[in-house]
Amino acid sequence: MGAECIGTFWLVLGGCGSALFAAAFPELGIGFYGVALAFGLTVLTIAYAIGHISGCHLNPAISIGMAVGGRFPWKNVIPYIIAQLVGACIAAFVLYMVYTGRPDAFVGSFASNGYGENSPGGYSLAACFLIEMVLSAGFLFVIMGSTHRLAPVKFAPLAIGLCLTLIHLISIPVTNTSVNPARSTSQAIFANVSWPLEQLWMFWAAPIVGAVIGAAIYRFLMSSRNGKDGDVVTVDETVVETD
Amino acid sequence: MGAECIGTFWLVLGGCGSALFAAAFPELGIGFYGVALAFGLTVLTIAYAIGHISGCHLNPAISIGMAVGGRFPWKNVIPYIIAQLVGACIAAFVLYMVYTGRPDAFVGSFASNGYGENSPGGYSLAACFLIEMVLSAGFLFVIMGSTHRLAPVKFAPLAIGLCLTLIHLISIPVTNTSVNPARSTSQAIFANVSWPLEQLWMFWAAPIVGAVIGAAIYRFLMSSRNGKDGDVVTVDETVVETD
Amino acid sequence: MGAECIGTFWLVLGGCGSALFAAAFPELGIGFYGVALAFGLTVLTIAYAIGHISGCHLNPAISIGMAVGGRFPWKNVIPYIIAQLVGACIAAFVLYMVYTGRPDAFVGSFASNGYGENSPGGYSLAACFLIEMVLSAGFLFVIMGSTHRLAPVKFAPLAIGLCLTLIHLISIPVTNTSVNPARSTSQAIFANVSWPLEQLWMFWAAPIVGAVIGAAIYRFLMSSRNGKDGDVVTVDETVVETD
Amino acid sequence: MGAECIGTFWLVLGGCGSALFAAAFPELGIGFYGVALAFGLTVLTIAYAIGHISGCHLNPAISIGMAVGGRFPWKNVIPYIIAQLVGACIAAFVLYMVYTGRPDAFVGSFASNGYGENSPGGYSLAACFLIEMVLSAGFLFVIMGSTHRLAPVKFAPLAIGLCLTLIHLISIPVTNTSVNPARSTSQAIFANVSWPLEQLWMFWAAPIVGAVIGAAIYRFLMSSRNGKDGDVVTVDETVVETD
Repeated sequence: MGAECIGTFWLVLGGCGSALFAAAFPELGIGFYGVALAFGLTVLTIAYAIGHISGCHLNPAISIGMAVGGRFPWKNVIPYIIAQLVGACIAAFVLYMVYTGRPDAFVGSFASNGYGENSPGGYSLAACFLIEMVLSAGFLFVIMGSTHRLAPVKFAPLAIGLCLTLIHLISIPVTNTSVNPARSTSQAIFANVSWPLEQLWMFWAAPIVGAVIGAAIYRFLMSSRNGKDGDVVTVDETVVETD
Repeated sequence: MGAECIGTFWLVLGGCGSALFAAAFPELGIGFYGVALAFGLTVLTIAYAIGHISGCHLNPAISIGMAVGGRFPWKNVIPYIIAQLVGACIAAFVLYMVYTGRPDAFVGSFASNGYGENSPGGYSLAACFLIEMVLSAGFLFVIMGSTHRLAPVKFAPLAIGLCLTLIHLISIPVTNTSVNPARSTSQAIFANVSWPLEQLWMFWAAPIVGAVIGAAIYRFLMSSRNGKDGDVVTVDETVVETD
Repeated sequence: MGAECIGTFWLVLGGCGSALFAAAFPELGIGFYGVALAFGLTVLTIAYAIGHISGCHLNPAISIGMAVGGRFPWKNVIPYIIAQLVGACIAAFVLYMVYTGRPDAFVGSFASNGYGENSPGGYSLAACFLIEMVLSAGFLFVIMGSTHRLAPVKFAPLAIGLCLTLIHLISIPVTNTSVNPARSTSQAIFANVSWPLEQLWMFWAAPIVGAVIGAAIYRFLMSSRNGKDGDVVTVDETVVETD
Repeated sequence: MGAECIGTFWLVLGGCGSALFAAAFPELGIGFYGVALAFGLTVLTIAYAIGHISGCHLNPAISIGMAVGGRFPWKNVIPYIIAQLVGACIAAFVLYMVYTGRPDAFVGSFASNGYGENSPGGYSLAACFLIEMVLSAGFLFVIMGSTHRLAPVKFAPLAIGLCLTLIHLISIPVTNTSVNPARSTSQAIFANVSWPLEQLWMFWAAPIVGAVIGAAIYRFLMSSRNGKDGDVVTVDETVVETD
């Protein structure tokens, strides 16, 4: 639980921090590209640091998806989500303190996720829901596959971290990229406009629906393989997913 | 087959999606560079997720090249290509749905490949054919080498994914980079101009010719080594190529 | 000691060198993003080259933090710090010689770290101290975790190097990113303005305080786990930390 | 020899190709940053593909440095250099054919290296020699260290490839980055201005001098360690260096 809290702290600090401080810095800013890399590297680094100890979800949608996929006990889902929210909000508080240490700081929507007129590119609610859902499904698929006991699991933090980078490369212009309800919540709380909280429901609903779909597809794919070629792989044991 | 379909879905969703949504976003866009990384990361992530189960071609030219190289049974080539086309087209449909969820969406040529006046940099048909052919040959060479049983095969998804990134870093300005007939076909179908379908033949021909050349060179290089130094390596067994 | 000196030379040469020569090159410059990658790659490359021989701190704050964390003997801390300072200053001298080989060279503050009006984004002393401290804590946490004997330690140079990249992606706009007193000192000495030396105290204080906090948190987290689930892990043995 | 020729072909095709086609493409170009990554990825990909078979120098300075470092037989140096030059020139020819397939192609200096007024940033001959020499020394040091038999050698292609990326991140503005006489020669031959050939001597001299220094430092560091702590490591056996 401590690890989960620290890990989600790191994800929000690094991902949202790079977006707030560095994305749009005049001339030399890192752009969407650098933010995408930063999000991925938070996961990569913390997963190599603590993944061998306690798992490393950092994301309510992943915890739920892994439970659906038979890799995480349902009884631990709520405690994990609480730890993730606490870590994310502490990180948002640190970011808020640093960010407002600038004379011309303009908190605005912080690094919140939005749809419709609050989508960076003006994408509709339906388009935003669709992309968040599909990308969350792909994320869970990659997580479950790369941490499968027959996979080269030492590479899982690399694959999962860079998968989050990929997801951001695609969808920052659409929703500012969530696929993580804890990340979205932490930013909405510290924003000083109201729409992030009003639109927050979507950044719980779409990632969780997507994660459940992704986990179910992976489980179906594996079970159909088992039936077909006799290489029985039990995916129902409860195992720590990363490394 | 299911894995091959999902994998190609992921490749087109991520690679073409980043190009459509994020490449030219004002000021903060990811540019050709971000698109190149996104294509590579789709392969890297899905190969770590499913490469240990079922292979991971995601590309008709690779399936044909691997068959020529003695690593993939010829009877599976057509089914694989069909699965790849289905996955690619579903991804293109999802991208179309999201992309048109923007009020000012202009589908145009989608993320199609082209030559001559449809080359991003205005390169001629001959130049475009040459670069697609040479890069596809290099791609097959890297795939066959990095998945060879004496290579550190756990790194193969990293090497192959980043090889696709490299290929895009070179040739997006020339042809918008294909090296993958399934990727090109999926985009040409959803474009609402006619040239992508008219020029599609080239993005089947050049990658396949190149892949065959690359596989043949690798096979020749290995067999000449075997003759020379007695370290006999049989490359004719049919093995799953990734991991 | 020789390895530590060479390693810190490489870190300053690569990280500060890319900032001085390439960050703001007209049109094609690498920006904050490229500098962030360069810093990370110096650590990644040198750690794979010498990490298996002699450790690879390259940073006084890391040496102190590792001592606090029980991974490095206190008696070696001062000699390591001296070697780091020597290596960093030799690198700064080489950079100075190259940089002034340009007719229009303007040394100014070199690649120094600063706060307040010398922060790239104008962040206050408090904000700068906070971010340097928090990021240094996270850095130590990742270093201790990824080099733990149960972690996949061959990936540690990758995780630690990319962690330094992440840290730069976040905080170049705030402090020009230090988290390393040797790096800051080497640049302040060669700057031809006075504020880098005047503000140097902060880039010793904040990274060291942060490193101590990070090491303490990691050690507490591990010891509480040991008490809780009986999986006793001794973190007090003195081991070389990287690989 | 065939592998060495193909590998150097790939290095020049990818590195110089990305520079010629994509670096300065309007608005979306990959800049120095993308070129730096491309050079590194050519080495990373080909080293995972063929490094386990035949070594992978791709660079006359590396072959000489490895001979000095006791890792490569002197009698093979000249044949390797010839193979490297042949591969590099074939790649340059392919690039020339593609590049001139553009109506407004302006070959100019191609992707040549230069100093003084031909340095991208106008750096003097002395500054250019110094940076090429120091970076080549660092390159050899990383190559020898990461391929040492006690190092995690499966990561060597990653470390060496990303080391070349790092070197480009630092020095493209200074010399357009060589550290590789074969790369420089191939471009000078196809340039249609005269200065690349006139200045070519420097891009043989500085990388080779640097490589010799780097190899000597590494060897000295290792031998002094052996004397000091009794952990005898013989670096004089002739071994294939990559992986």
